[in-house]
Amino acid sequence: MHHDRFYTLSASCPDRVGITARVSGFIAQNDGWIVESSFHADAATNRYFMRIEIKADSLPFQLAELRERFRREVAEPLAMSWQINDSAIRKRVVVLVSKQEHCLYDLLARWQARELDIEIPCVISNHDNFKSFVEWHGIPFHHVPVTAASKTAAYAEIQRVFDDARGDTMVLARYMQILSPDLCAALSGRIINIHHSFLPSFAGAKPYHQAYARGVKLIGATCHYVTSELDAGPIIEQDVIRIDHSDSPDDMLRYGKDIEKTVLARGLRYHLEDRVLMHGNKTVVFR
Amino acid sequence: MHHDRFYTLSASCPDRVGITARVSGFIAQNDGWIVESSFHADAATNRYFMRIEIKADSLPFQLAELRERFRREVAEPLAMSWQINDSAIRKRVVVLVSKQEHCLYDLLARWQARELDIEIPCVISNHDNFKSFVEWHGIPFHHVPVTAASKTAAYAEIQRVFDDARGDTMVLARYMQILSPDLCAALSGRIINIHHSFLPSFAGAKPYHQAYARGVKLIGATCHYVTSELDAGPIIEQDVIRIDHSDSPDDMLRYGKDIEKTVLARGLRYHLEDRVLMHGNKTVVFR
Amino acid sequence: MHHDRFYTLSASCPDRVGITARVSGFIAQNDGWIVESSFHADAATNRYFMRIEIKADSLPFQLAELRERFRREVAEPLAMSWQINDSAIRKRVVVLVSKQEHCLYDLLARWQARELDIEIPCVISNHDNFKSFVEWHGIPFHHVPVTAASKTAAYAEIQRVFDDARGDTMVLARYMQILSPDLCAALSGRIINIHHSFLPSFAGAKPYHQAYARGVKLIGATCHYVTSELDAGPIIEQDVIRIDHSDSPDDMLRYGKDIEKTVLARGLRYHLEDRVLMHGNKTVVFR
Amino acid sequence: MHHDRFYTLSASCPDRVGITARVSGFIAQNDGWIVESSFHADAATNRYFMRIEIKADSLPFQLAELRERFRREVAEPLAMSWQINDSAIRKRVVVLVSKQEHCLYDLLARWQARELDIEIPCVISNHDNFKSFVEWHGIPFHHVPVTAASKTAAYAEIQRVFDDARGDTMVLARYMQILSPDLCAALSGRIINIHHSFLPSFAGAKPYHQAYARGVKLIGATCHYVTSELDAGPIIEQDVIRIDHSDSPDDMLRYGKDIEKTVLARGLRYHLEDRVLMHGNKTVVFR
Repeated sequence: MHHDRFYTLSASCPDRVGITARVSGFIAQNDGWIVESSFHADAATNRYFMRIEIKADSLPFQLAELRERFRREVAEPLAMSWQINDSAIRKRVVVLVSKQEHCLYDLLARWQARELDIEIPCVISNHDNFKSFVEWHGIPFHHVPVTAASKTAAYAEIQRVFDDARGDTMVLARYMQILSPDLCAALSGRIINIHHSFLPSFAGAKPYHQAYARGVKLIGATCHYVTSELDAGPIIEQDVIRIDHSDSPDDMLRYGKDIEKTVLARGLRYHLEDRVLMHGNKTVVFR
Repeated sequence: MHHDRFYTLSASCPDRVGITARVSGFIAQNDGWIVESSFHADAATNRYFMRIEIKADSLPFQLAELRERFRREVAEPLAMSWQINDSAIRKRVVVLVSKQEHCLYDLLARWQARELDIEIPCVISNHDNFKSFVEWHGIPFHHVPVTAASKTAAYAEIQRVFDDARGDTMVLARYMQILSPDLCAALSGRIINIHHSFLPSFAGAKPYHQAYARGVKLIGATCHYVTSELDAGPIIEQDVIRIDHSDSPDDMLRYGKDIEKTVLARGLRYHLEDRVLMHGNKTVVFR
Repeated sequence: MHHDRFYTLSASCPDRVGITARVSGFIAQNDGWIVESSFHADAATNRYFMRIEIKADSLPFQLAELRERFRREVAEPLAMSWQINDSAIRKRVVVLVSKQEHCLYDLLARWQARELDIEIPCVISNHDNFKSFVEWHGIPFHHVPVTAASKTAAYAEIQRVFDDARGDTMVLARYMQILSPDLCAALSGRIINIHHSFLPSFAGAKPYHQAYARGVKLIGATCHYVTSELDAGPIIEQDVIRIDHSDSPDDMLRYGKDIEKTVLARGLRYHLEDRVLMHGNKTVVFR
Repeated sequence: MHHDRFYTLSASCPDRVGITARVSGFIAQNDGWIVESSFHADAATNRYFMRIEIKADSLPFQLAELRERFRREVAEPLAMSWQINDSAIRKRVVVLVSKQEHCLYDLLARWQARELDIEIPCVISNHDNFKSFVEWHGIPFHHVPVTAASKTAAYAEIQRVFDDARGDTMVLARYMQILSPDLCAALSGRIINIHHSFLPSFAGAKPYHQAYARGVKLIGATCHYVTSELDAGPIIEQDVIRIDHSDSPDDMLRYGKDIEKTVLARGLRYHLEDRVLMHGNKTVVFR
């Protein structure tokens, strides 16, 4: 972690000789100071991944020109998927919640302490429990009820609110509804969910009850990108906690909260810092 | 975890033949239903420890009579240190904070969700940063500044507020002041602190900077009872998190928050559920 | 851990008032000194579990009489499933291996250091790689090849060797064959396997390749009792280790060895110390 | 992990613009295929660290010429500390043990399975307990007793054996003697120790007894380079395991073995794969 303004380049391309040389050569020619860099060659698919932080004031031009030159001189010749982001521009994270408080409190604590250096333009919920708590923080709250009958309209409304808020990322902070395939497709790679099991074990409903029935000795939580296939999207981060025979599903639910909020916060941070590169249904995470 | 009202007996006494028989015999004679029980014999000191939960409505008498009979029939003959608490009577936890938010948000989230089934009669701080946040939760906030000159008066004031609030337990939720020996003595075994290192490493100030200087590969947090000797009281709970060479003291501070709040919440819960029995400068923790 | 000779009572029975009193009363009447005791009430099934260690020389009679009296005075009236074992009688553990060395080396290291205080009357393998290594330790080695054609005969031979060796427990220390249903039934609750995944994820063949394909961020190992249903028996112990995008299935295989041998050793120890009580397809583990 | 022959460059130098470009440019100009690469800029000391694996057969010259060209074209202009190693040349690891078996068994298991792809030219011990076990593996065993009177001669003998064996690395696998300052100096950065505590807690003798006395809730192990200051050298790897009030120092000793051998094996592997770069009294570890 450092405090100067920097640009983050994250990219992937077919592997070949000379990629690092070309990218770092481009940066060096422009006097760019590399603060942090990570590279990964995936032998199975012959694809190359990278993430580089460059001090903004070490470069002689602004972001737009950096992007344009990089595109022309490096990205296109190497057939890259890429983006360059500016640490001075806070990402806009829209949070969706239902009735459970732990992830919401946790995210707001990190936000208000600037530990997560983001904008939260609004919170959306299918219940109004947290309305005044969210508003006390100066954040707009949207109550969008979801019923069997209203689902289509509700998801359209959620997307409208997200777009109006110019959201970059949508976080399902224990939002107990399954988003529509349309919404998943429209925001592919931009919706982050926390599932309360160590996936692929115990996908679907009531994972702690499933874990109790199977008699496992550890329970977990999984932060992943949302796809139209339930609980099957690319995994960003996971962790587990030990339980034993004396723990009921209610106990697991309580312990689980502690890993859910931690795993979500870690996964979200990786995503916001452009540390996560999707790779088919998997992720490269440059910690 | 269960939801019926229960009494919790926690006790220790010199070890000898027949203690469990005598205690459980007393409970059985009165038709007491044991929900959970734990025993520990410490061979080094020849002392016996126990904790038993009994369903309240399985007994034919009320708490006062239970205590009186237990004292006469069991505790005195066995020379026990003991207490019996009632799950229906919420413990009163006074929280002390400074300027860091993570433990406070975390405790309030657990409190409002009834995950921690306690009363928080007030929050005390040497700063007023969190005044409106705490008051929004309907909890009184006391701003008690602490300066070099005002220390004696400040700690007297804190004790007065605690007493007025009929506090059972005082939690130092990253309260960055060292309490007076008088206060430590007056509330012995009732003040819980979270220290941001894996004690006994890095006691005292700026533990993350100490950890950075030494180049350790894991950092930790320690929940302990406060005694007049700084960071040396009986340890209730500890945990660690992995770091590496790329992490600055600021990074550690950020990661550390996640274990600090978790370890504090676990240690506090053990204490509130009478799972912690002091044993010299150590603890027996019946999880 | 202690070094005096002791008896271990492990038992379960339908829950009711007075079980602990009756059991501990029986022990106290006979001047039995309890070294360690654990109890668990399973509310969902209304069953009570216990494990008690009693110093052998504190009792006025020998093991046979202890068993007889306990049966008559306690176990039968309470409809218990129970056993009493003597720490002076080492359990006999027959180890089955294939070509992987890590669990075998690990078990033999623990055995020769008396950390695992057991007899290993023999090792059985479908390959002869480890013959001289095992025999160097003074332990007989049986090479029992298993082919598609010879399976029935091979499993009969394994059972014969186990019976001749008067085995108490059979350990599949990365034995890559699926035992016959007959053998599983004959030794129900006495065969311990280590599976190289965090079950129920990735049951069956090549779990590390499955884990790689799914992109999980932690891999695990599971120690469980073998039943005729593959990888579905009662779980005794589990643990996990962190991996990342740079780890190939071969890397996972290598890291996995470290948790496999540790989890197997822990689970086996729990079993040998009568700390594991089966409960349907789950276990109570008194650590 | 991969199986082709590769060269590993590890280096550090004062940080400046263009280091990555210069190094990767050199590799690309020679058609070098980068398999894995890691970089770290230490802001506090303005020093840059790197580790790069290059496929051996992608380069048009042999190791000697690679070293010579790299020295002239890159290392000298950038004032680098550096080395280039060849995966085809196995490192020679001399293992020192006393009477405890767990690390020795563990290292030999990894060695015989080629999981650790090293030569073990000999084992040295101040006792002869493991003589025939080591020799069974085809490895020479040197019994070098160490008494108060013979220390100087003994350490001279150890160094002579190490030199004769053309050792690259010396591993203290629970070797319970303190090496002489001369030996530490002569093999600086090449002697790896496993200490049975989570340093800097409980340095010196009997760390588990110290941990028991303090009442910590986790115990640990530390793999570090040996310096003349006892237990104070640069830390390579650490890990911890949970204990509780029921664990005696003997129990801790037993549990501790499991982390000692794992932490030693991990730290040793990092060292052997040139993943560890010393940095004052700290390490950069590129995992």
